[in-house]
Amino acid sequence: MGIRSPEEYVAGLRDSRTVFQGGGRVEDVTTHPVLGICVEHGASVFRLAQREDLRELLVVSEGEGAPYSRYFALPRSSEDLLRRMKLIEKTTEGARSVLNIIKAIGSDALFALMVISHHLDQAKGTGYASRVAAYGARCRAQDLSLAVAQTDVKGDRSKRPHQQEDPDLYVRFVERREEGIVVRGAKAHTTMGPVVDEIIVLPTRAMGEEDAEYAVAFAVPAATQGLKFVCRPTTHRGQSAFDYPISRHHIETESLTLFEDVFVPWERVFLCGEWEYAGALATLFARFHRFTAISYKPSTGDVFVGAAQLIAEANGVGGASHIRDKVTRLITYTEIIRACTKAAALDCESMEPGIAAPNSVYLNVGKHYFASHFHEASRILQDIAGGLVITQPSEADYQNPEVHGLLAKYLRGAPSVPTERRLRLFNLIKDLTASEFGGYNYVVSLHGEGSLEAQTLTTYRDYDLERCKKLVLGALEGP
Amino acid sequence: MGIRSPEEYVAGLRDSRTVFQGGGRVEDVTTHPVLGICVEHGASVFRLAQREDLRELLVVSEGEGAPYSRYFALPRSSEDLLRRMKLIEKTTEGARSVLNIIKAIGSDALFALMVISHHLDQAKGTGYASRVAAYGARCRAQDLSLAVAQTDVKGDRSKRPHQQEDPDLYVRFVERREEGIVVRGAKAHTTMGPVVDEIIVLPTRAMGEEDAEYAVAFAVPAATQGLKFVCRPTTHRGQSAFDYPISRHHIETESLTLFEDVFVPWERVFLCGEWEYAGALATLFARFHRFTAISYKPSTGDVFVGAAQLIAEANGVGGASHIRDKVTRLITYTEIIRACTKAAALDCESMEPGIAAPNSVYLNVGKHYFASHFHEASRILQDIAGGLVITQPSEADYQNPEVHGLLAKYLRGAPSVPTERRLRLFNLIKDLTASEFGGYNYVVSLHGEGSLEAQTLTTYRDYDLERCKKLVLGALEGP
Amino acid sequence: MGIRSPEEYVAGLRDSRTVFQGGGRVEDVTTHPVLGICVEHGASVFRLAQREDLRELLVVSEGEGAPYSRYFALPRSSEDLLRRMKLIEKTTEGARSVLNIIKAIGSDALFALMVISHHLDQAKGTGYASRVAAYGARCRAQDLSLAVAQTDVKGDRSKRPHQQEDPDLYVRFVERREEGIVVRGAKAHTTMGPVVDEIIVLPTRAMGEEDAEYAVAFAVPAATQGLKFVCRPTTHRGQSAFDYPISRHHIETESLTLFEDVFVPWERVFLCGEWEYAGALATLFARFHRFTAISYKPSTGDVFVGAAQLIAEANGVGGASHIRDKVTRLITYTEIIRACTKAAALDCESMEPGIAAPNSVYLNVGKHYFASHFHEASRILQDIAGGLVITQPSEADYQNPEVHGLLAKYLRGAPSVPTERRLRLFNLIKDLTASEFGGYNYVVSLHGEGSLEAQTLTTYRDYDLERCKKLVLGALEGP
Amino acid sequence: MGIRSPEEYVAGLRDSRTVFQGGGRVEDVTTHPVLGICVEHGASVFRLAQREDLRELLVVSEGEGAPYSRYFALPRSSEDLLRRMKLIEKTTEGARSVLNIIKAIGSDALFALMVISHHLDQAKGTGYASRVAAYGARCRAQDLSLAVAQTDVKGDRSKRPHQQEDPDLYVRFVERREEGIVVRGAKAHTTMGPVVDEIIVLPTRAMGEEDAEYAVAFAVPAATQGLKFVCRPTTHRGQSAFDYPISRHHIETESLTLFEDVFVPWERVFLCGEWEYAGALATLFARFHRFTAISYKPSTGDVFVGAAQLIAEANGVGGASHIRDKVTRLITYTEIIRACTKAAALDCESMEPGIAAPNSVYLNVGKHYFASHFHEASRILQDIAGGLVITQPSEADYQNPEVHGLLAKYLRGAPSVPTERRLRLFNLIKDLTASEFGGYNYVVSLHGEGSLEAQTLTTYRDYDLERCKKLVLGALEGP
Repeated sequence: MGIRSPEEYVAGLRDSRTVFQGGGRVEDVTTHPVLGICVEHGASVFRLAQREDLRELLVVSEGEGAPYSRYFALPRSSEDLLRRMKLIEKTTEGARSVLNIIKAIGSDALFALMVISHHLDQAKGTGYASRVAAYGARCRAQDLSLAVAQTDVKGDRSKRPHQQEDPDLYVRFVERREEGIVVRGAKAHTTMGPVVDEIIVLPTRAMGEEDAEYAVAFAVPAATQGLKFVCRPTTHRGQSAFDYPISRHHIETESLTLFEDVFVPWERVFLCGEWEYAGALATLFARFHRFTAISYKPSTGDVFVGAAQLIAEANGVGGASHIRDKVTRLITYTEIIRACTKAAALDCESMEPGIAAPNSVYLNVGKHYFASHFHEASRILQDIAGGLVITQPSEADYQNPEVHGLLAKYLRGAPSVPTERRLRLFNLIKDLTASEFGGYNYVVSLHGEGSLEAQTLTTYRDYDLERCKKLVLGALEGP
Repeated sequence: MGIRSPEEYVAGLRDSRTVFQGGGRVEDVTTHPVLGICVEHGASVFRLAQREDLRELLVVSEGEGAPYSRYFALPRSSEDLLRRMKLIEKTTEGARSVLNIIKAIGSDALFALMVISHHLDQAKGTGYASRVAAYGARCRAQDLSLAVAQTDVKGDRSKRPHQQEDPDLYVRFVERREEGIVVRGAKAHTTMGPVVDEIIVLPTRAMGEEDAEYAVAFAVPAATQGLKFVCRPTTHRGQSAFDYPISRHHIETESLTLFEDVFVPWERVFLCGEWEYAGALATLFARFHRFTAISYKPSTGDVFVGAAQLIAEANGVGGASHIRDKVTRLITYTEIIRACTKAAALDCESMEPGIAAPNSVYLNVGKHYFASHFHEASRILQDIAGGLVITQPSEADYQNPEVHGLLAKYLRGAPSVPTERRLRLFNLIKDLTASEFGGYNYVVSLHGEGSLEAQTLTTYRDYDLERCKKLVLGALEGP
Repeated sequence: MGIRSPEEYVAGLRDSRTVFQGGGRVEDVTTHPVLGICVEHGASVFRLAQREDLRELLVVSEGEGAPYSRYFALPRSSEDLLRRMKLIEKTTEGARSVLNIIKAIGSDALFALMVISHHLDQAKGTGYASRVAAYGARCRAQDLSLAVAQTDVKGDRSKRPHQQEDPDLYVRFVERREEGIVVRGAKAHTTMGPVVDEIIVLPTRAMGEEDAEYAVAFAVPAATQGLKFVCRPTTHRGQSAFDYPISRHHIETESLTLFEDVFVPWERVFLCGEWEYAGALATLFARFHRFTAISYKPSTGDVFVGAAQLIAEANGVGGASHIRDKVTRLITYTEIIRACTKAAALDCESMEPGIAAPNSVYLNVGKHYFASHFHEASRILQDIAGGLVITQPSEADYQNPEVHGLLAKYLRGAPSVPTERRLRLFNLIKDLTASEFGGYNYVVSLHGEGSLEAQTLTTYRDYDLERCKKLVLGALEGP
Repeated sequence: MGIRSPEEYVAGLRDSRTVFQGGGRVEDVTTHPVLGICVEHGASVFRLAQREDLRELLVVSEGEGAPYSRYFALPRSSEDLLRRMKLIEKTTEGARSVLNIIKAIGSDALFALMVISHHLDQAKGTGYASRVAAYGARCRAQDLSLAVAQTDVKGDRSKRPHQQEDPDLYVRFVERREEGIVVRGAKAHTTMGPVVDEIIVLPTRAMGEEDAEYAVAFAVPAATQGLKFVCRPTTHRGQSAFDYPISRHHIETESLTLFEDVFVPWERVFLCGEWEYAGALATLFARFHRFTAISYKPSTGDVFVGAAQLIAEANGVGGASHIRDKVTRLITYTEIIRACTKAAALDCESMEPGIAAPNSVYLNVGKHYFASHFHEASRILQDIAGGLVITQPSEADYQNPEVHGLLAKYLRGAPSVPTERRLRLFNLIKDLTASEFGGYNYVVSLHGEGSLEAQTLTTYRDYDLERCKKLVLGALEGP
């Protein structure tokens, strides 16, 4: 019941959703040359949950509603957060290394909604918490895949929502009806929106009173009337797995998600005009979601480390001292992120109604570190590998009988390493750092889960500066 | 006579050359979907030479053999090197910003060959200098396009040429005949090899006596019997200039260049067994060629700076203090390279027989700086621009009447900037830093014209450490 | 019994120890103008243990031998290591922020000796473990202060111990007698050696069979015959606490520690010729000691953060966005180290006979991070503060009635902050980063607890590279 | 006439100047234990001018007023600026490596005053230019030493001059009399003020109309009534040249310079209320002075490079690959600055009335680079040297016969390097980077000649952004 098969997930996407890509409307996302890869990638999370050896980690087998995906398990302690970290790490390791969030991001949103709706109900006597609970229970019971649409298109970034020339540049409700509300606007870069079951919509920032109509949160099925997705372009379409070992099977899509006066029934509305809570909701979601980010990023780091060492060995210089130094810098990159994730879990904060939120400082520090050093890590990996990363012939050329013999002769590296492995390693490194997919990785690392600026602001705001100031003033006074 | 039209250049490429790409043999590089773009890019250098406003800079109009392309003009002073810098900058500015080397690299090789052959003839009584002079005169008179094949495939990088299991992993001569020599081996990543007239082949490193057969330099026409090019893969083929404003028109190709027992007549052989000169030739070519590198890289920097400022303005934050800081870091990136180029020209070294070589320390410092900071510069540009760099819909979607109105409404930024300009700017930034072409740029910046390690070694070796040590020992003695 | 007062510690230092500083022999370290400050600093650890509010953290009150200093408590779990982290943090916070190791370093050595002697006895049937246990019990029972002498002077660093021209350039035993051994040599920079009760001597590196005589570990009282300390120079001597708010009260000394044929009885010998264990002992001590390092360094970070924010406020720019950015970078510096410390405790390794060793990768990554970024952190702090850090008049000038009025008028900053606080803050920042003591801090951060190179090597050696390689090879095979 | 001897310079300082240091009034700066070193340092510039081998570089022998110090020679071309660069480099090389500005800074101010007074007279019909010319001619003819007092104490930095609670927190004129003006206020960190002949006072920033009384520039003799200097503290006083090889002979002082209603006759007033010119004067002085900065900083770099290589050799690891990498990073540090200096001279700007101003972008980029990377350069040098930099015994201990033999035995490094040289090298590195003087160097590098922020602002403001934007817009249009 609570655990769907990959096939069930895929079948669930064949509905009336309105998706555009490559200049036309997509009839069926599951068979589309680009989006089909994204669907397969999404399905891989469901596939893992069926593996016996991972069942204990991925599936909660006991308690109310069991069995269900562990992604929906509320974190109530450091241990729970550490387990969630491991869960995310496992579902994103190796070839899935970049990200895989059709479960993670939605549950991050649910946790934040649970906390905020609880406080909001306490303060205002509203009834949001039970709606959130019911919605969350349904997602869990039906093992739904989820996307979160948060970032508004923003128009002129120097202006607040109500100051924009066009009032629709942040998503807002334009009408309250008896059965629900009508929303209008657009959200940018909704990851996997077109290939999931449900879209959860959250405000992108704190709102002032004049921005009250922009303080809105809700959830809609992907096939809702008036909801349109326009996907980012990509040239990926059934390419060679030799040439593109990662992105051949694992890419995600982002959409511009358009709300053309979409109707949302009240049971799916989680914030509607209570502008004082928009900022807290945006921030708390970011907090849970950045924990997800710093939980999956070390998986990428592991692949960088392994690829760096393997290609150095394939080039015959696996034991050189400069290789050791550079690989250690990649280890450092990976493990500083991982250390921050662990510290964020260890020093978690318990929030009403019983949810453990990861430590804000450690997770923002960790997220900023990974975002600001990813380009450097890529440079180190490319530096170790060499120029063949981009100049090596494709599989088609390598298999061309007119030149195969010559290529096999001349593209060989250290005799102990099979030439084909070496070529595949170059392609893996290219795929991750020097292809269209690689280009995407740079920007996702930087802007996914919030910009560098957002992490700096949050760190400063949430840090206990008074403690430090007190220590200094004490020191000035002497022993 | 000495100045060809772009059409003449293109016509000259329609010969029997043996080129492979995408799994098959390329019949005509000028009409091939990928290589045709490279040819057009190559032709742009010839096109510029026909512009009245650039004629003085690009064409030498007086003296022996005039008119001819200024690329072939020997640098004899700081002023000549500064003019060469300007020449390279002009031919690579703006949309051509990445590189454009079918004239530059070949003349760099000719300069190095002139100096080394002179010294070699002096020391050994050989007659290489006149061969080099005759070959260079022909290139100049016929306004030829040139590629240089230097980097050997190297096999096990921990071993020297003669230590490899397969003796062919560095290019070598396998036979001396009365009329010439026979060469075998392969060179990696020959830039533009398949779309130029002539290939100049140089040794990749210093050789010991046991590696004498690998000490070989020569030139062959691209259509020579036994010479085969296998090009790097690319998905570029006639894409939208809206989506790919740079790479739609300006890409280069690299080939694995295979020498299957190629015969080279003596008048085209410039080194053959004189192993003591292999290192000097490799190094001096690198010296001239890295000067080319640090002359064209500021053009890329200019585009980064301009794009950063423009996209910030399009987002409505052109005047923000953090934007100013970040744009200034891009200016710094660009101008440190430019300062090193100017210093390298200013402190040039005069070499027999009358050639001014740019200062080795400044150019290696400058090259290392641009290579080691390019990823950071890209990160800054992406940081300023935002996530739409990768998630913005393609031109095809933007023009799709079903969604065009919505996209035009929601993708607008600051009201003062046309929405379409904003979208094109995002695409420019994507093209440069987050597309397949962008991925290529990262690796080219790092490995083109030699690895970081090579620049470090050269700087240390060529620096006047004794002067610094003497100053310190003087300081220890007191006033 | 097991908890001494500060006065008892000080009294215990008045013995026949042989100490040189400033060109002469030091008669009494407790009253010496320089070393007296170090003694006071050492005493502060004992003083803290007498504070009621810290007693639970600093003193173990139950179990065998209780009460005793918690420094001597064996870590048996993650929780123990986290408590040790807190213990070290507390004893080094605020004005004591740099380091305070007369308990920490010795117990680090004891833990390592316990583990290694256990393994050694198991393997070789020796009886070291009981000696170590007895020695440790005595230290604990008598609440002794301890120094560790590990780094040999090394002579020509390109040569191993037995290859040196002078065989004494690494400490070695030159004679075995019935009652003990005779040792000769010198150890560099022994922190606090001249002002503690006991010196524990450990090998500095792995030894080969030919270096067997250098594989020696032992402990001696500071007043042992033949043991001489020559202290590092310092100009600190009873300076103004206004001018030097930290170093007026809290400095440490380092000595060159000379062993002129010192006799060591067998019960104090913990390694003697078993060269196969020298490396393991050196490494394991470093592991415990680097955990100490990354536990005290965040205390310095806290002071940097607090001082940065306070001086910005005193200058009237506490709310500026560039200040926020810079303070956040200091927070990041501090909390990345802290996160590594917590992760090192969390992922500890249980070692026979029941000791929890902190995770090697996290602690080396953390140590490398703090060492390689300390100069940058200092630069940020100085950047925020401004040039008055170094040009502000001294207290003597400030109190000079001829100019006091003028100075008070002109050195005032934001009206809300007392001028004197501002001046003291400048002096604190100078003391930490731009005075003789500040200069010392730079080098200690870099070379204390092992060089950057040592941390790189250890990280690479101890990292599970095979796991990463396996993930990559799995990814190459596809889903 | 125009070239004074060192003795004449020293004699000229024995006057009624009012200087405070160490809590009391300084009777005679030339014999004061601290300031006497500064005087000796100042005298060294005069001493160099007497050396035959340097005469051509340091003295102008032909033309009006010759002979005179080349520091007073107006730069009229790139060649003149390159010669000035060489002049500054020569007077600061080796042991004098940090800075030496009693000629440079004053002439920088004179050049700026000449340009601004010319424009001001043109625009307003004032007569400042002739006063400046007469004053400059006198300085040149009498070979005076000069200091510049520019940085105001600023009080609350978030407020402009007239907004401060106390109106005196920026220097201002409080009265205009027939014969001159009366000025009040204080300038921070005036380098060498107490030990030069003349103090030139310039505004620190652009002023608005309400700040007109703060728009004031003038010059006064150091012994002027009402002028008081309070010097920065230092513990330097006749220390061992073995322990402090640089700072024993070469330090500068900075003063808080107080103007207690100082009268300035009109012929010494160069700006008085013309607030529109305050910013231009401040900026143009900074431009000339930052050129001085980037001309002397490479001298420090040379010493870092030489010391790094020498200490590595003394430690026996001069040929290690990691040493080569690190020394090359120091070379890079030095030569990037030098390249910027050369480019700034090469691309100079000719200003009325005939003065060549160095290129603003290159010099600000160069200055920012040296300031922001000095700490890193110091770290590299310390990293190479090792911990003995701070723990090595002093000369007094080394010469103590009780331990000299032991120290000589154990402090020896590579046999080929005399032990004493090794010890002196450690001390040199300490003196530069890890002593009180070293601490001073960090802050001077950062804040001398303007803060990082100032250089960023100037670079951005003076850069030709429009050129870059145009290139990008051209690229968007296609070929």
